[in-house]
Amino acid sequence: MADDNLSAAADHNNLAELERVGAGTAIAGEIFGLVGKSQFFAEFSQEDIADLAAYMDVYRAQPGQMIIREGDAGDFMMLIVDGEVDILKKSFRVAQQHMTSAGPGMTLGEMSMIDGEPRFATCIASQLTVFAVLTRDSMAKIILDHPSLGSKILIKMVTMLSLRLRQTSARLLRVMEENR
Amino acid sequence: MADDNLSAAADHNNLAELERVGAGTAIAGEIFGLVGKSQFFAEFSQEDIADLAAYMDVYRAQPGQMIIREGDAGDFMMLIVDGEVDILKKSFRVAQQHMTSAGPGMTLGEMSMIDGEPRFATCIASQLTVFAVLTRDSMAKIILDHPSLGSKILIKMVTMLSLRLRQTSARLLRVMEENR
Repeated sequence: MADDNLSAAADHNNLAELERVGAGTAIAGEIFGLVGKSQFFAEFSQEDIADLAAYMDVYRAQPGQMIIREGDAGDFMMLIVDGEVDILKKSFRVAQQHMTSAGPGMTLGEMSMIDGEPRFATCIASQLTVFAVLTRDSMAKIILDHPSLGSKILIKMVTMLSLRLRQTSARLLRVMEENR
Repeated sequence: MADDNLSAAADHNNLAELERVGAGTAIAGEIFGLVGKSQFFAEFSQEDIADLAAYMDVYRAQPGQMIIREGDAGDFMMLIVDGEVDILKKSFRVAQQHMTSAGPGMTLGEMSMIDGEPRFATCIASQLTVFAVLTRDSMAKIILDHPSLGSKILIKMVTMLSLRLRQTSARLLRVMEENR
């Protein structure tokens, strides 16, 4: 999509263009399969995962399909169940810079889901990708209806953001040193 | 302190060397004063803050005193009530690199408090600094005893970590571009 469409499409919901596979409960089994593989679900009981799955929807993206667009308003996070997603960011000199990739068990989009700020980067499926979506409204409901599960999810988010912040800060420090 | 002491002191608690001012309830007034100034307390009610203060202890650090040491095990986060803290990180070429500074209303140390990994950076008071401490055990108690307050605190942590991750990633991208 052309860059000059980006600002006009600030409230565009890319999910609407993707194939909705079904309710999270339909793939609770696959989500169980991620337990152990996924940092996100360490310390979650089977019951926790069944409860959480009931608040999620599952989508499928074809290779090359955009799931999240930098600058958009975004109210959901996604858990990759299968496939791979490229994370790209616009920079001053380059149209899109590849920052990293994410695979099964990893989450994306939790920053905008929680803080309501525009999407920081673009996420594009690099292969056929199945992912479960948790919206801000569903997260609010979980906190009210299942406070203990809500806390576990939030603690996981803090843990994963901390890990990324440590990695990004360490990378920044290295790059700054190389520049001296 | 000499660098070669760092690994030996991995479980050293710097708080033990600092002046404990009293229980958080004693400075609930000052904490109320931070509301509005502090991102951390936006959306907290007076009652929330009174509840939270009951789980905190207040310390005072003299200029130059170390509060958190990079590489240590750490089980608390701190909320700066008054003063200023320098954040420093060891790098390959430089003994200590100044990364940023933090002032009243800002929190430090929540990454290690939640994920249990070693402290990522060193925090030194650059002036007389008063701060409130929340330990991992107290956080666990809040989640059990006041689940709604627990969720609010965790949501704030996610928000603040997201902001820092956005800022750090943007800075990394800029530095990488300057290198080309």
